[in-house]
Amino acid sequence: MSENNADRVVLAYSGGLDTSVAIGWIGERTGAEVVAVAVDVGQGGEDLEVIRQRALDCGAVEAYVADAREEFATEYCMPALQANALYMDAYPLVSALSRPVIVKHLVQAARQFGAHTVAHGCTGKGNDQVRFEVGITSLAPDLRCLAPVRDLALTRDVAIDYANQHRLPIATTKNNPFSIDANVWGRAIETGFLEDIWNEPTKDVYSYTDDPTYSPLPDEVTITFERGVPVAIDGQSVTPLQAVQEMNRRAGAHGVGRIDIVEDRLVGIKSREVYEAPGAMALIAAHRELENVTVEREQARFKKTVGQRWTELVYDGQWFSPLKRSLDAFLEDTQRYVSGEIRMVLHGGRATVTGRRSAQSLYDFNLATYDTGDQFDQSHAKGFIEIYGMTAKLSAAREAREAQARGETE
Amino acid sequence: MSENNADRVVLAYSGGLDTSVAIGWIGERTGAEVVAVAVDVGQGGEDLEVIRQRALDCGAVEAYVADAREEFATEYCMPALQANALYMDAYPLVSALSRPVIVKHLVQAARQFGAHTVAHGCTGKGNDQVRFEVGITSLAPDLRCLAPVRDLALTRDVAIDYANQHRLPIATTKNNPFSIDANVWGRAIETGFLEDIWNEPTKDVYSYTDDPTYSPLPDEVTITFERGVPVAIDGQSVTPLQAVQEMNRRAGAHGVGRIDIVEDRLVGIKSREVYEAPGAMALIAAHRELENVTVEREQARFKKTVGQRWTELVYDGQWFSPLKRSLDAFLEDTQRYVSGEIRMVLHGGRATVTGRRSAQSLYDFNLATYDTGDQFDQSHAKGFIEIYGMTAKLSAAREAREAQARGETE
Amino acid sequence: MSENNADRVVLAYSGGLDTSVAIGWIGERTGAEVVAVAVDVGQGGEDLEVIRQRALDCGAVEAYVADAREEFATEYCMPALQANALYMDAYPLVSALSRPVIVKHLVQAARQFGAHTVAHGCTGKGNDQVRFEVGITSLAPDLRCLAPVRDLALTRDVAIDYANQHRLPIATTKNNPFSIDANVWGRAIETGFLEDIWNEPTKDVYSYTDDPTYSPLPDEVTITFERGVPVAIDGQSVTPLQAVQEMNRRAGAHGVGRIDIVEDRLVGIKSREVYEAPGAMALIAAHRELENVTVEREQARFKKTVGQRWTELVYDGQWFSPLKRSLDAFLEDTQRYVSGEIRMVLHGGRATVTGRRSAQSLYDFNLATYDTGDQFDQSHAKGFIEIYGMTAKLSAAREAREAQARGETE
Amino acid sequence: MSENNADRVVLAYSGGLDTSVAIGWIGERTGAEVVAVAVDVGQGGEDLEVIRQRALDCGAVEAYVADAREEFATEYCMPALQANALYMDAYPLVSALSRPVIVKHLVQAARQFGAHTVAHGCTGKGNDQVRFEVGITSLAPDLRCLAPVRDLALTRDVAIDYANQHRLPIATTKNNPFSIDANVWGRAIETGFLEDIWNEPTKDVYSYTDDPTYSPLPDEVTITFERGVPVAIDGQSVTPLQAVQEMNRRAGAHGVGRIDIVEDRLVGIKSREVYEAPGAMALIAAHRELENVTVEREQARFKKTVGQRWTELVYDGQWFSPLKRSLDAFLEDTQRYVSGEIRMVLHGGRATVTGRRSAQSLYDFNLATYDTGDQFDQSHAKGFIEIYGMTAKLSAAREAREAQARGETE
Repeated sequence: MSENNADRVVLAYSGGLDTSVAIGWIGERTGAEVVAVAVDVGQGGEDLEVIRQRALDCGAVEAYVADAREEFATEYCMPALQANALYMDAYPLVSALSRPVIVKHLVQAARQFGAHTVAHGCTGKGNDQVRFEVGITSLAPDLRCLAPVRDLALTRDVAIDYANQHRLPIATTKNNPFSIDANVWGRAIETGFLEDIWNEPTKDVYSYTDDPTYSPLPDEVTITFERGVPVAIDGQSVTPLQAVQEMNRRAGAHGVGRIDIVEDRLVGIKSREVYEAPGAMALIAAHRELENVTVEREQARFKKTVGQRWTELVYDGQWFSPLKRSLDAFLEDTQRYVSGEIRMVLHGGRATVTGRRSAQSLYDFNLATYDTGDQFDQSHAKGFIEIYGMTAKLSAAREAREAQARGETE
Repeated sequence: MSENNADRVVLAYSGGLDTSVAIGWIGERTGAEVVAVAVDVGQGGEDLEVIRQRALDCGAVEAYVADAREEFATEYCMPALQANALYMDAYPLVSALSRPVIVKHLVQAARQFGAHTVAHGCTGKGNDQVRFEVGITSLAPDLRCLAPVRDLALTRDVAIDYANQHRLPIATTKNNPFSIDANVWGRAIETGFLEDIWNEPTKDVYSYTDDPTYSPLPDEVTITFERGVPVAIDGQSVTPLQAVQEMNRRAGAHGVGRIDIVEDRLVGIKSREVYEAPGAMALIAAHRELENVTVEREQARFKKTVGQRWTELVYDGQWFSPLKRSLDAFLEDTQRYVSGEIRMVLHGGRATVTGRRSAQSLYDFNLATYDTGDQFDQSHAKGFIEIYGMTAKLSAAREAREAQARGETE
Repeated sequence: MSENNADRVVLAYSGGLDTSVAIGWIGERTGAEVVAVAVDVGQGGEDLEVIRQRALDCGAVEAYVADAREEFATEYCMPALQANALYMDAYPLVSALSRPVIVKHLVQAARQFGAHTVAHGCTGKGNDQVRFEVGITSLAPDLRCLAPVRDLALTRDVAIDYANQHRLPIATTKNNPFSIDANVWGRAIETGFLEDIWNEPTKDVYSYTDDPTYSPLPDEVTITFERGVPVAIDGQSVTPLQAVQEMNRRAGAHGVGRIDIVEDRLVGIKSREVYEAPGAMALIAAHRELENVTVEREQARFKKTVGQRWTELVYDGQWFSPLKRSLDAFLEDTQRYVSGEIRMVLHGGRATVTGRRSAQSLYDFNLATYDTGDQFDQSHAKGFIEIYGMTAKLSAAREAREAQARGETE
Repeated sequence: MSENNADRVVLAYSGGLDTSVAIGWIGERTGAEVVAVAVDVGQGGEDLEVIRQRALDCGAVEAYVADAREEFATEYCMPALQANALYMDAYPLVSALSRPVIVKHLVQAARQFGAHTVAHGCTGKGNDQVRFEVGITSLAPDLRCLAPVRDLALTRDVAIDYANQHRLPIATTKNNPFSIDANVWGRAIETGFLEDIWNEPTKDVYSYTDDPTYSPLPDEVTITFERGVPVAIDGQSVTPLQAVQEMNRRAGAHGVGRIDIVEDRLVGIKSREVYEAPGAMALIAAHRELENVTVEREQARFKKTVGQRWTELVYDGQWFSPLKRSLDAFLEDTQRYVSGEIRMVLHGGRATVTGRRSAQSLYDFNLATYDTGDQFDQSHAKGFIEIYGMTAKLSAAREAREAQARGETE
C-alpha cells in the first residue's frame, strides 16, 4: 500500500503494552498507517526518545514526541489552581487536565501528517475516552475517533498474545497490580485490590509522596503569587512548571496530598480512586488563603459556584466548550489582586498556612482590631441589623400570627 | 422597686467580666431588673452552678441555667454535619451554630420571666450581635434587643473599674491575650497578636487539640452513620453529643482540626480567626466520604450548592429564616441513604478515611471492576459520547467556520 | 405459541398509525405478545374506548385504558406550577410532564400482565425516548425498553405499507403537516415548515388558543390559591384538573399562552418548537405574583435557582431521580404561605395580574407607604448602608491605591 | 463666606421641588455651598437649560448639566440587555441602571468643583439611597454622602413651606398622586393608591405606552444584533440609544412593556411598583430568542444563573463592585456569537418573535429535521440513554432493594 493512498491514524502513544500493540492492531484491522504521538506532560518514567524508537519498532510510520510540560503547567494547571479546582472537594483533576493538552497535540499531528482519525488507548467505561473524543471533535469536528480497546476488541489478553507473537519490544505481564496515570500535577492509581472500597491503600501504591507518618523535620516555605499564579518560592523566581515541580518535591517529602475517594464518573458509575498530588494540593491551600485575604466577600462566594462548575466541566471532558471559556473569563477577572506571599509549613501530610501578606490585601488591621486604633464605627451596627433582619422579622411576625390563628402557643 | 413595675431584661450570661458587670450596668442605665441566663452548650470551664450564684451575687433578680448540650448536638451540630458545613471551605460554624440555641433559651426565659428585652455581651463589630438580634426578632418579633457594650458604652476599661468599685466576685485583668468562644462543636480564638496576619499562632492558643507535630501512635476508629448521623463509634452506640465528645477526645489527641484563616465577616470586614474543632472536622471528613458512596451524582453536585447557601445563611445569622428551613427540607431528603460505616485513621493532624461500607452503597463492584465479572457494557459508550459531545461539536464547527471566514487557519 | 411461554411487551399506545402498526410489527420481529396501554392525560381527541378496541383489532392480546387526568393534574402539573417551571424561561414542560405519569402506568401494566419489556413510539432523536426509558428503568430497573421506530426500523413509509397490507383499521396519510403532542397542561407542535426558523407559524397550527389579534371583550378572573395550588376560580371550588381546564377555556379564548422558540434538546441539538398552554401560562403568572407577595426575599431568590434545576431535570427525563425528590422537598416547603387571591384580566394574548390579596402577605402597607402611617424608621438606613457597602468601599479604596501606584489619575 | 473656606456639596439635582429646596436647606443646615448637577439619562420633561437656571435661582453656586444619554444606553442599558436583566423575572432595572451613571457624573463634579460631600434627594426607605451612597463610596471612598430628606429632616411639608417662604421658582403642590422616575430604559411609578395592592393601575399612570386593549394594526419590525447589541432596525443602522428610543416609540404604541408587581426591596420590605419599558422589554424578548439560536446549551443554562446574580447585584446597588465586574467578563464572552436578525410583531401589548436567522446559528436544519436530509444518527441514542440514565437506574435498584427489605411491594 503506497503512502499516498493509505489512510492515516494518529495514535496517542504512551510506550506501554496496550498502545504498542495498538500500532499493529489498528493497521491490521483498518488498513491504515499509524502515526505515534507521545506527549510529555511531566509523567516521568522512560526517556521519550526511547519511547519514540519503540513506536517505530512496533510499526509506526511516523513517531513524534512533544514536550508539553511548560505549556501544560502554564495553560492547564495554573487555571485549575486559580479555580481551586477540586472535583468532589478532593481530586485536583490530574488526568482530566492533561487530556486536553494531549488532544491539542494529537490534532496538530493529524493536520501535519494528513490523518483523518485519532486513536487513543482508553477503555469504554472510563472518563478519559470521553475527554479524548469530545476534545478531538471540539477542536476538529471533521476528525474521526477510534479506541482500539473498545472498538477493535483489543483486550489485555489479546494484546499480550499479539506482542509475544510479533515479538514486540515491550514487556508483557498478565498482572499489573494497578492502573496508573501521571503528570506533573499529580498521579492517579486505580483498580486491583483498591476496587474493594473497604481496603486501605498499601504503601506501594504511592510514588510522588513519602509516608506522612514518618515525616522529616518541618519545612517552612514562602510562596509568592502574582494574579493567582506562583512566581517565586522562598524568594527564588520560578516558572509555573518549576513551582509545581519544586512543591512536588518538598511537599511530597512530607506526604502531603494523598487522596483516597469514591468518585462519581461521567459515565454514571462510582469508582474508587487514589491520587497523590503534593505540589497541587499545597499550592491550592496557599492560593485559597491568599484569596481569603485579597478577594471581596461576594466575589469570593460566587467564585465558589463558578469554580465548582468549572471543575465539573473539566472533569466531564468539556475543556474546549463555550461555557468553559466564559467561566475562564470570570475566573481570570477575579485574580486581578490575588498577589502576595503565603508562608506555609510542610509536615506530616499537612501543608499549613502560617502567615500571609499582600500589598493588595483587603484585611484592614484598623477595622479588624479590638485594640487601640480601632476605626470601625460600631454605632452603624444597630441600623444595619434592623434593616438586614427585616425580612426575617416580618416572616417571624407572620409565623406568630399563623400559630396564634391555629390556636398554638409559642 | 417592686417586681410588678420594673421592666425586666433577660441577659445572656457567660460568667465572665463583661456580662457580670452588665448586670449592674443595665440596671443603672435602664432601670430594669436583670434576669441572667447561662446556657451550657458544652463550653466546659466553670461549673454552671457557680456561674448561676455569681449572677445573683452581681445583682441579678433571677439566674437560670439551661443544659442545652444534647439539644445543641442533635438539633444544631447534626444538621451542620449533614450539610458538611464549612464556611469558606474551612470553618465549621462553631459560634454561628451555638447562637441560635442560646437565643431559643433566652426567648423562653423572656417569656417565663416577663421580660421585654434581651441583652447580650457582644460588641458592635462582630457577627454575633447580628446572630443574637436577628435570631431574637425571628423568634419573638415583639422583643427588644440590647447590647450594653455597643449601646450603653460598656467598654472593657469601664467594666474593670465598675467591677473593682462594686467589688464584684469576678477577676479583672486588663489584658486577655485572646477572645475565646467555645462549645462542644469547637473553639474559636481571635484578637491579640493574631491580628497581625503574618504571625503564626503560638502553642498556647490551643486547648481542644494537642500538637500534631508530636502525635501518639495512629488511632483507628470506625464510625457508623444512620441517615447522615453518627450512631456508633467502634461498634459502641452513641448519642450525637457523645459522638462529638468522643471524637473531640480522640481526634484532638492527634491534633486534628486546627484551622487558621482570614475570614469574611457579615459586617463587611475581614478578620483573622483561629479555630480548633477535632470532632467536627473528623466527623465531616467521614460523613463526606460516606456521601460519596451513597449519594447519586447529580444530587451530590446540587447538594454542594445548597450546603454552601445553608452555611452562609447560618454564618450570617439567619438560622430561623424561611430559606434556612426550606434548605433543611432539601438536605434532610438527601440523607435518606447516608448510612454505613467509615473507618478512619487519626494521626499527625490528619483524619484519613481508609475504608467505607454501606448496605445502601451505590458503588457497584461489578460495574466498576476491570477484572473478571465486569458487567459494564462498553458498547454503549460510543453512542453516549457522540450525543453527549454534540453541543460542543456543533460549537466547534461554528468556531472553525468563523475562523475560516476571518481568513485564519487552525 | 401459548400464552404461558410467550414473552410480553407493554406498548404505550396512542391510537395513531405508528403505534397501531407497532403492535403487529413488534410481534413479528420479536415473537412477543403485545399489551396496548393508552393513558388519558387530557389529550382530547378520540374516545379512549374506540382506541382500546382498535388496539385489539390491530392484534394486541390485551388493551388497557387508564384515566390519569386527575392524577396528572394533581401530582405532575401542580408541582410544575409551584416551581413556576418554564424551560428556557418559556416552555411549561407540557410533554416532559406527561411522560412520567404514562411511564408509571406502563410499568404497572407490565407488572400486571407479566411483561418484561416496555415499548414506546418515539424516534431516536428526541427527548421523549430518554424520558420514557430513563423513567422506566428508574421505576423498574429490571424491565427492558424497546423503541420500534428506532430499534426495529419502523419508519413512516414502512408503517403505511404495513397498515395497508394488513388492512389495519387506521387512516394512513403520507403527509402529516406537523407532529403534535397534547395533554391538559398544553399542546406541542413541531416539524414541517416550522423547521425553517424564519417562518412564522400559520394559524392552523393552533387548537387550544384563539387568535389574540381578534380578542373578545376582556375577561376578569379571580384565582384562589392554597399552598401554591389553585382551589377556587371566581369563588367556585375547583380541583387542580378543573382549574387547568377552566383556565384553558377562558385564557385560550383570549389567545393567552402561545409560545414559539428554538429549544435546546437533551440529545444535543436545537429544535424549533411551538406550544400553546393557555391555562398553564395564566396560572403560572398568577402563582408567581402571589409568591411575590407571600415569599420572603432570600427564599424567593434561591427558589429561582432550585426551580431552574427542577425544570431542567424534568425536561431531561429525570422525574424519578433522587435529586428531583430532594428539590421537591425544598419547593414544597416554600409553598407553606403561598395562599390568597389573584385577580387577573385575560385579553389579547395577555394574562395581566391586576390585584392580589392574602392573609399571609408579607407586604406591609404601614412599612411601604409614604403616606401618613409610615412605620419604617429611616434612621436605621445610614448604618445599614455604611455596613452593607463596606466590602465595596474597601475594594474601592484598594482600586484607588492601585491606580495611584500605577501613576493613573481617576 | 469666601470660596476658599466654604465646604462644597455636590447635589444630584432633578429640577423638582425637593432638590430645589435642598439647595438652600443644605446651605442653611451645613454652611456648605451647593453645586447642582443634573444628568440627562433620557428622562424627558423639562429642558435641561431651564433646570440649570432654576438651580442657580435657588441658590446653587454652580449648576452643571451632563448629557449622559448615549453613555447610559451604551454602557448601562446594553449590558442589561445582554444579561436579559429582569429583577424577579419582571423588572428591567430602570432606576437601578441610571443611578450608577448619575453617580459617576456626581463624583466627577465633586472632583471638578472641589466638593467633599455628595447629596441626593432620596428618602431613607428606598433602594436608591443605597445605590447612590454605595456607588459614591465605591468610586470615591473619601467622599461623604448626605440625604437631606433622611438626614436633615427635609420632609415634603417642610419643603413646601420653605419654597413658599423663599419664593423659590418651583411649583408646590401638597399632593403628587405618584412618585415617578424615568429614563430612556423605562419609567417607574409608585406610591399613592397603588400602595393598596388590590387596586388596578388607572390609565393616567402610564406615559410611555398606549393602552394595549386598543392597539393599532400590528407592526412588524426586524432587529439586527451584533454580539448581543442591536445595530440596525429594519435595516437602518442605529446606535444603542437610537435602538431603545425607536423601540420605545414603536412598542410603546402597542402597549408593550407594562409591568405591575410586588417587589422585594433591598431594605427588606415589599413594595408595589408599576413600570413601563416598551423598548427594553421588546429588545430583551428579541435578544433572548437570538441567544436561543446562537448560544450553546450549557453556556445558556449557566448564563441564567450569572444573569440572575448580575441583576440582583445591580438592583442592590453594587454596580461598581468587584463581583459585578467579574460577571461582566463572563457575560461579554457569552455574546461572541449573538449576532443575527430577529423579526417580531408588535401588537396588543405583545412583542412576539416570528422569525430568526443568524450566520452564527447553532440550529442545524439537517440535524433537526424529520424530513429527507436528516443527518442525525439515531443509533447513538440507545447507548446515550443507557449511560445517561445509569445513575438513576442504580438509585432505582437501591430503592427497590430497600423497599423489599422493608417488606413493601411496589
